[in-house]
Amino acid sequence: MYFLTYKYNNEEKIGVLSNDSKNIIPMEKIFHKLNKKTPKTMNDFIQLSNDRLIQRIKTILDTTNFDGIPKDKIKICAPIPYPKRNLICLGKNYTDHVKELMGKTIADSNIPESPIYFSKAASPAIGDGDIIKSHSSLTNQIDYEVELAIIIGKDGMNIKEDEALDYIFGYTIINDITARDIQRERKQWFKGKSLSTFSPMGPYIVHKSIIPWPVELNLESKVNGETRQKSNTRNMIFNIPYIIRDLSQGMELRAGDIILTGTPSGVGLGFEPPKFLKSGDIIECYIEKIGTLTNKIE
Amino acid sequence: MYFLTYKYNNEEKIGVLSNDSKNIIPMEKIFHKLNKKTPKTMNDFIQLSNDRLIQRIKTILDTTNFDGIPKDKIKICAPIPYPKRNLICLGKNYTDHVKELMGKTIADSNIPESPIYFSKAASPAIGDGDIIKSHSSLTNQIDYEVELAIIIGKDGMNIKEDEALDYIFGYTIINDITARDIQRERKQWFKGKSLSTFSPMGPYIVHKSIIPWPVELNLESKVNGETRQKSNTRNMIFNIPYIIRDLSQGMELRAGDIILTGTPSGVGLGFEPPKFLKSGDIIECYIEKIGTLTNKIE
Repeated sequence: MYFLTYKYNNEEKIGVLSNDSKNIIPMEKIFHKLNKKTPKTMNDFIQLSNDRLIQRIKTILDTTNFDGIPKDKIKICAPIPYPKRNLICLGKNYTDHVKELMGKTIADSNIPESPIYFSKAASPAIGDGDIIKSHSSLTNQIDYEVELAIIIGKDGMNIKEDEALDYIFGYTIINDITARDIQRERKQWFKGKSLSTFSPMGPYIVHKSIIPWPVELNLESKVNGETRQKSNTRNMIFNIPYIIRDLSQGMELRAGDIILTGTPSGVGLGFEPPKFLKSGDIIECYIEKIGTLTNKIE
Repeated sequence: MYFLTYKYNNEEKIGVLSNDSKNIIPMEKIFHKLNKKTPKTMNDFIQLSNDRLIQRIKTILDTTNFDGIPKDKIKICAPIPYPKRNLICLGKNYTDHVKELMGKTIADSNIPESPIYFSKAASPAIGDGDIIKSHSSLTNQIDYEVELAIIIGKDGMNIKEDEALDYIFGYTIINDITARDIQRERKQWFKGKSLSTFSPMGPYIVHKSIIPWPVELNLESKVNGETRQKSNTRNMIFNIPYIIRDLSQGMELRAGDIILTGTPSGVGLGFEPPKFLKSGDIIECYIEKIGTLTNKIE
């Protein structure tokens, strides 16, 4: 199932893709069938959801002939435009990406012995098709990073690796846009990662039931049609169960939390000379079974 | 005015201290007088507030004989237990603190040329009198940092220094508890700062109208009665207007955001040998005109 947040008649709502992927089924139609009060936001829906509810929604989708809204009539938003807390990100989680950073002074260039976490303020996150601001008075080194993002499904602390899947709701794509000059200048990465519009997310949250476990998905980014990054999530240094166990040690993960799992090589900074994003550039981030997130630089 | 979040009869509510500081006036009593719907949380109240509303509340407090709740009948909570976004923190914002870190490998020991921002997940933040967990299986280097925290009062981006005060709602005290070993190991500071109970906050949010501008307040921390940190906020490297201008460049600040302005010298790591916190230690963080935030290590 593919869940989304969208605007229709100027109202922001949540819904799910029809089985033929052509239409949006508003969540209220599904909850009407369930005889339950419709959650207002994706965060409310995730908070409420459990395996049984998801199974019932699947059955309803399989057996009901809904009058959906055609995809081209809605404006898609980030699936979670206002995350409850900052996005939690992993730095340097693909070996080839660590290597391409060698000598670039963003960080020392060793393969990390344990995950490096930082956070990114994304309020609001932007959706598929939205414009990334160029912030040209602040930076001239805007870079892209395709990343698989985990959406946490229930609260938990000190989670074991073999229980990690229970705590996952699903997955989406995030383009971890970064101002490299600000990232470098400020030492800690928060500011260079948190400028307005720097968190494109979506198009959908794909429920975990669609994604085989362990998660081994091809991912790719293109700039103006030219492939820049191409890898598979199996190449992560720290895999998803490891991250969930490690991050939840002593720190509660909460339903709706979003964890970015790092980016493979091929970012703009990795080229010699660097290939930073320019006004008008179109960036596509693709992840197998999830889709493509496309954004343009102002 | 001193605003707080408290528990009474097992319900979490917001209120304000009576003028004689002896009683809690529930916010609903004030909003009843205002003939308005009472905001449920401190975040809702801050969102709603403006100079005129604050002036009206002040007049009501000055002219009404409320039946308040005696202070000893309530349990005080963090004024904002669930911040909307992570706490935004400044690293190395007092020269003497930068000097005491020399050679400690937490960060290079230069005086920063521009503010270093990182974030801290605080969900929930804990209140005055609450216990800080020892996390003894994860760390044996828990440290304290008294900090003046700014509470943002309205949304804004690219704010000018001479407008900074307009965007401030008030101030509180935060003890930026840190696991130094995790902070060092993970390079980026997020995880070592974000363990459960590592964000004691309060006791109150003091409205900006009580604090002279520019903000020059004595601040101090004590461990088991022994003074460890003692300085004045005028010693910040980057002052409050500078921080608000700089941080809001390209990044929207939002009502309810909490900005920690850094800590002076005297943290446990600064001693030779270091003086980390031990089980049973009592830490008091004092800031002039705001009060004292006291917490104990589990």
